[in-house]
Amino acid sequence: MASYSTKFSVTVLGSNSALPANGRHPTAQLLNANNHYYLIDCGEGTQMQLRRYNLKMQRIKAVFVSHMHGDHYFGLVGMLNSQHLLGRTKPLKIFGPPQLQQIAELQLDAAGGRLQYPIEFIALEKVGEGTNEIFRDKHIIVHAFDLKHRIPCLGFLFTEAEREHTYLAEKGGPAGVKIEEIPVLKQGMDVVREDGTVIRFEDFTTPPAPPRTYAYCTDTLPLESTVEHVKGATLLYHESTFLEKEKKRSKETFHSTAKQAAEIARKAEVEALMLGHYSARYGELDEHLVEAGEEFASVILSEEGKEVEIGSPI
Amino acid sequence: MASYSTKFSVTVLGSNSALPANGRHPTAQLLNANNHYYLIDCGEGTQMQLRRYNLKMQRIKAVFVSHMHGDHYFGLVGMLNSQHLLGRTKPLKIFGPPQLQQIAELQLDAAGGRLQYPIEFIALEKVGEGTNEIFRDKHIIVHAFDLKHRIPCLGFLFTEAEREHTYLAEKGGPAGVKIEEIPVLKQGMDVVREDGTVIRFEDFTTPPAPPRTYAYCTDTLPLESTVEHVKGATLLYHESTFLEKEKKRSKETFHSTAKQAAEIARKAEVEALMLGHYSARYGELDEHLVEAGEEFASVILSEEGKEVEIGSPI
Repeated sequence: MASYSTKFSVTVLGSNSALPANGRHPTAQLLNANNHYYLIDCGEGTQMQLRRYNLKMQRIKAVFVSHMHGDHYFGLVGMLNSQHLLGRTKPLKIFGPPQLQQIAELQLDAAGGRLQYPIEFIALEKVGEGTNEIFRDKHIIVHAFDLKHRIPCLGFLFTEAEREHTYLAEKGGPAGVKIEEIPVLKQGMDVVREDGTVIRFEDFTTPPAPPRTYAYCTDTLPLESTVEHVKGATLLYHESTFLEKEKKRSKETFHSTAKQAAEIARKAEVEALMLGHYSARYGELDEHLVEAGEEFASVILSEEGKEVEIGSPI
Repeated sequence: MASYSTKFSVTVLGSNSALPANGRHPTAQLLNANNHYYLIDCGEGTQMQLRRYNLKMQRIKAVFVSHMHGDHYFGLVGMLNSQHLLGRTKPLKIFGPPQLQQIAELQLDAAGGRLQYPIEFIALEKVGEGTNEIFRDKHIIVHAFDLKHRIPCLGFLFTEAEREHTYLAEKGGPAGVKIEEIPVLKQGMDVVREDGTVIRFEDFTTPPAPPRTYAYCTDTLPLESTVEHVKGATLLYHESTFLEKEKKRSKETFHSTAKQAAEIARKAEVEALMLGHYSARYGELDEHLVEAGEEFASVILSEEGKEVEIGSPI
C-alpha cells in the first residue's frame, strides 16, 4: 500500500435511492482532494447534511450532477442560495445535464434575487465511447463516461493531480545540486548544466505515490463498458440499489444489484468497492455486504457522515 | 373555552428562515382538519420531516405554497415523487404562484417519467383588497390574502367547515321527534310538520362550537391589512424572523420582528399567536418569546414536530 501525504477522501452525505427512508438521505457525496472540496450529486437535504457533518459548503469549488432524477439534484438550488446567504463571493462551477441550468435559473429568477457570486454551468452531453475530460485544476482531473439508466446518466472518474517528486536534500547537498535546480528535479526532469553535466532527478528525488482515483457510478445497469472506464480505480462507488432476489426489478428500473456491483469491481480490478443507493425496502444492509463479498473481497457499505480515505485499508 | 369534538391542529415541520441552522428546517406545516391533511409550504426536507414525525404524506389532500422563495417550496417535487413511489393514486391539489407549476413540470419532465396520480395546479394571483376563497371541502375553507414581501406572497386563513348540531335524544325521544326529522334539526333548521307543528332545532340540539380558524402569515412586513384579515383567529402564525434589535435589517428584508408579530396578534384580538421563521442567527429563541410576550399574552414558539391543537389552552 502506497503512503500518501495529501488528502483524498470521500464523505457520503446520502446513501439511499429515490425514496428517503430508514434515516438515509438521497444521494450526495463530498470529495476532498488536498483539502479542496468537490460535491458529487446533491439530493434534497444535502445542505443540512453538510452542516450536520461540519463540512463547510463555502469550500465547494465544483458540483458534478450525474443525471436529472430529483434524488440527485433537488438539494442544489437550496444550497446555492444558502451559500449566497452565508456571503460566498467565490465562483462555483456546476457540471450537469443541460436541463439543470434551465431549472436552476428559473428557480433563482422566481426568487427575484441575484446571487452575489458567479456560477458557471457546464452542460454535460452523452459521451459515447470512452471518457471525456470535463474538469482539471491543481488538485483533480475529472473524466465523465456514459452509464445506462432510464434517462441519460454519467459516471465520473476523479483522479488526483500529479504531485511533485520529493527532493532528497541529504543526497543533493553533498553532490552540489544548486537551489535553482531543485524545482526542475521535483518535476521529474533531469537538469543539463551548461558544461554538459547531467543531474538525474532519479538520483536526488523519490517519486510521488501514483495518483489515486475515485470512480463514481450511479444510477445504472451493470455495464461491460464501466469495467473499462474504472479499470484499476483506487475506490469504486457503484450503486447497488437491490439484492439479487430483486434482480428482475433491478433490471426493469435500470439499476444494479450488490452482486453485479461486485462483479464490476472484480473485473475492473479496483482496490476497493463502496456500495450505495439502497432501495428504501432494505432496513438493514448486511445482506448487501454479504452478497457483494462473495464476489469481491474489499467491500464497504456507504455510511452517511463517515469519511472514507481513498487508498487506505478498508 | 369551547370544547371541540373534531381535530384541528397544526404540526410545524420547519421553523427556520431561508438558511437551515441550529437543527431547524425551512418552512413547512401540516394542518390536520378532522383527520384530513393539508400541507402549508414545503421547504427542502419536508418529506423527511413528515417521515420523522410519522405523518403519512399520502394523506395530504392539498398543498398551499405562499411564495416562490426556495425555503418555502424546494421540498415539493421530491415529495410529489415520493408519493408516486409509495403508490399514490389519489389526486393532489397544489395552490401556489404561477411559476410553481412551470418549475415543477420541468422537473418532472426532466426525470422522464409520469406520476401515476393526477396533480391539479391552481395558480394564485395577487388578491388586492380583502380575501379570496381559494378552496373548500367538507373539512376546511381556505382564504388567501396579500402579504408584503420582496416578491408576491400570500397569507392563508384556514377555517373549519361548519359542523352539525348535536341531537339530544334524551329530549327528542320523549317529545316524539321522528327519525327522519333528526338530520334536519342537526343542520340547525326547524321542522314544520304537515299539521303545522313546529319542531324547533334549538329545543332538541346543542349548537356546534364556532368554527376555529388558523391564520398563516409568512413572509411579510407587519401590515395593518393583516390585522383585518386575521381578526379574531383562533391561532395566528405570524413570522418573526428577527428581534427588535435587528429591526432595520427586518424592514430591509421585508420581514417582521417578534414584537411586530405580537402587535398584530393584539390588534387582531386573536386567541393565540405562534412565532416562527427564525433567522439562523438565533440559536436560542427565549428572547423571541419574551419580546412578543410583552405585547401579547398567549404566545408560543413553533417547535418542530410538536402538534398544536388549535383552540386548546397554550
